[in-house]
Amino acid sequence: MMFKQITIIGFGLIGSSLARAIQKHGLAEKIICGDVSQEVCNTVLSLKLANAALTDLAVSVKGSDLVILSVPVGKMGEVMEKIAPNLKEGAIVSDVGSVKKEVINQTQKHVPEGVHFIAGHPIAGTEFSGPEAGFAELFEDRWCILTPQDHTELKAVEKMTKFWEACGSNIEIMGPGHHDLVLGITSHLPHLIAYTIVGTANDLEDDIKSEVIKFSASGFRDFTRIAASDPTMWRDVFLNNKEAVLEILQRFSEDLTALQRAIRKQDGDYLYKSFAETRDIRSAIVDAGQADPEDMKLIKKTD
Amino acid sequence: MMFKQITIIGFGLIGSSLARAIQKHGLAEKIICGDVSQEVCNTVLSLKLANAALTDLAVSVKGSDLVILSVPVGKMGEVMEKIAPNLKEGAIVSDVGSVKKEVINQTQKHVPEGVHFIAGHPIAGTEFSGPEAGFAELFEDRWCILTPQDHTELKAVEKMTKFWEACGSNIEIMGPGHHDLVLGITSHLPHLIAYTIVGTANDLEDDIKSEVIKFSASGFRDFTRIAASDPTMWRDVFLNNKEAVLEILQRFSEDLTALQRAIRKQDGDYLYKSFAETRDIRSAIVDAGQADPEDMKLIKKTD
Repeated sequence: MMFKQITIIGFGLIGSSLARAIQKHGLAEKIICGDVSQEVCNTVLSLKLANAALTDLAVSVKGSDLVILSVPVGKMGEVMEKIAPNLKEGAIVSDVGSVKKEVINQTQKHVPEGVHFIAGHPIAGTEFSGPEAGFAELFEDRWCILTPQDHTELKAVEKMTKFWEACGSNIEIMGPGHHDLVLGITSHLPHLIAYTIVGTANDLEDDIKSEVIKFSASGFRDFTRIAASDPTMWRDVFLNNKEAVLEILQRFSEDLTALQRAIRKQDGDYLYKSFAETRDIRSAIVDAGQADPEDMKLIKKTD
Repeated sequence: MMFKQITIIGFGLIGSSLARAIQKHGLAEKIICGDVSQEVCNTVLSLKLANAALTDLAVSVKGSDLVILSVPVGKMGEVMEKIAPNLKEGAIVSDVGSVKKEVINQTQKHVPEGVHFIAGHPIAGTEFSGPEAGFAELFEDRWCILTPQDHTELKAVEKMTKFWEACGSNIEIMGPGHHDLVLGITSHLPHLIAYTIVGTANDLEDDIKSEVIKFSASGFRDFTRIAASDPTMWRDVFLNNKEAVLEILQRFSEDLTALQRAIRKQDGDYLYKSFAETRDIRSAIVDAGQADPEDMKLIKKTD
């Protein structure tokens, strides 16, 4: 067994998937669920995802070797403060938040002496939320980014690396600020844009809206999947990665304005050039093995 | 046999898929390919997608009961003018363009007396292009929109309805202007946004770009698929559906600016409210049976 006892705080999609992965791969003798919702605790117990489920987060970490914070980014500091007094000497605390600099800022001051904190972010998810939505395979062949600080003990980094590898993930180590910039581009901006475009459609008159749904397969549908992601989680992401998001959003807006102007001025050459360049990135993603099964199916079909 | 001879002009993804569907369902005795590229004609013949393949478009329509224009929207008028003198009395001419008002404007004046023109748009496609990329099942369970004009003969509408139904499509009849508005929202704006965001990433420094590709599964990847679509086709769509696209783009930009301001001002309530509303549209799309197989798999997994 890798750990004697693991506490997961927050049993949503990620937390509950992690519990299932731990069970599947036998990574702990005991799993404890800490979740402030009694309803979630009941569900966790009825699904047999943990040996115990407690709404008192402070109590839930007692005696655990590993504590994983799987709550929205805006709650990390508060939860860390609450559990700090009960953390076991030598325990590792990690998290799964989509923003790393602010999570470290918020939690750092509460980490007790003798406890190892190492921030992490599994790049995995679906548009579904809650403990029923999780599955053990969520992390398989996906990246997990760890963002240790200068003072983080190498042993803790190694242990968390082995843990995520056992869940099927590939590990990448980078600085928290760099993480927030890269994810700002690959994840936060795309989600913001998807939320916007689906929101724009949502504001249309009802008769047009029903047709938008009917003919959604023509492009719009691809945006609705990510725009169905958990609103609390994403509110906290944008509030806590403000600078990187606003910076990349500024670039995006400039590029969109340039295309808008080209459409207005009927500048076909500019449009063609812009649209031709973006194909290469898709090929690079397919080459990097990051394309999804649907694509692979289509590629096979056209062989 | 539904038709004695069908000419398809333009053997790209859509044209070649249509030829395969006609063959699969036995909808014509003969298929003629008209394509200005000798290379495409050679490929079509070697793939046995047509009985003859001609680079002279005017000749390719001789004796055909049905002619389908499957070229970029900006070429429709020119092609119609070229083939007009050779069209058979009583023949039907249709198209598959993503814009309908401008296609009708451009082609109308060239349609000879005794020939029935009815504009159409199969809502189907992949990010792949060319005659090798097509497959017979592309139109199955997908919508095909027909946009007849006031003077279009009912018999021609009925015949094209049966033709597309035989290819597996569901038919929707609407006015050309309404089509352009609905598709502006569901298809043209999403493609423009996807091209923009992938272009923004493409302009990043090389080291960041390689990480964007590596971690693309976190949201960005969903945009790259549609941003890999044919650049000529999409240039023409934006040049020919300018008004509807600029109108909906204006709404989108306003909505994005409001979210940007909320992030800057740390207005969590506004962000939460915006993100929570968009979930309903996704459910409506799933309920309408328009969600893709990947989603259904995930839904099953979480049952």
